[in-house]
Amino acid sequence: MSAFTDNELEYLAGQRLGRIATVGPGGQPHVVPTSFRYNAEHDAIDVGGLWMSQTKKLRDVQRTGRASIVVDDVLPPWQPRMIEVRGTATVVATGGKALSERFEDVIVRIQPTRIISFGIDSADTHAHARSVGST
Amino acid sequence: MSAFTDNELEYLAGQRLGRIATVGPGGQPHVVPTSFRYNAEHDAIDVGGLWMSQTKKLRDVQRTGRASIVVDDVLPPWQPRMIEVRGTATVVATGGKALSERFEDVIVRIQPTRIISFGIDSADTHAHARSVGST
Repeated sequence: MSAFTDNELEYLAGQRLGRIATVGPGGQPHVVPTSFRYNAEHDAIDVGGLWMSQTKKLRDVQRTGRASIVVDDVLPPWQPRMIEVRGTATVVATGGKALSERFEDVIVRIQPTRIISFGIDSADTHAHARSVGST
Repeated sequence: MSAFTDNELEYLAGQRLGRIATVGPGGQPHVVPTSFRYNAEHDAIDVGGLWMSQTKKLRDVQRTGRASIVVDDVLPPWQPRMIEVRGTATVVATGGKALSERFEDVIVRIQPTRIISFGIDSADTHAHARSVGST
């Protein structure tokens, strides 16, 4: 059983970009747009991208083991929707073949420990948060 | 003199939403969409919003004194643009009158210490980063 609701999974599948946050040395947060996909096998969010091994987000995850991602948009005229996934994070070699020098065979996997969503489940009138997983 | 380039200021003025990242207790990052504006007097990014005093981002800033914000979009067909502002952060009473119970007289002000941008200055072909300010 997934930590996500069906509506949340459908929403995630329809969005192209999220913004991932990590924590740098000295406790300074770092936030950057990124592609992502829901990984059904691990019930996790996989974050990839160009030159992945050279990114600050990857180094931050290697050092801290934590990351969060927010996926959001606004439907007209002004109906904001968002889901934030906070969790433990690891650097994973996908085992696939790198598509090119730029598309490397490495991702950051976020295993959810807390999910906050707003505007995605039809009855949403407030943000709601829940702890998930074993952490 | 601003820590931002003219092109960066123009870009920021044209965007409605950013995503702010803070750090929670235990080192877990938090990231959430937010409105923002450039504050010319302080050469800072001011983040406001509904029920501001009750938000996790405000509590995180009170505890850590740090925040980062990313503002980004993609021009068609696929021309990504972004600016990330990392800095010290404080909770500030604006001294204005609260517009309503929801719109409170309090903001988070991010004073830049490092600016990373991509696709905004015309010659951009790579992301570039620079340290700014006195911190």
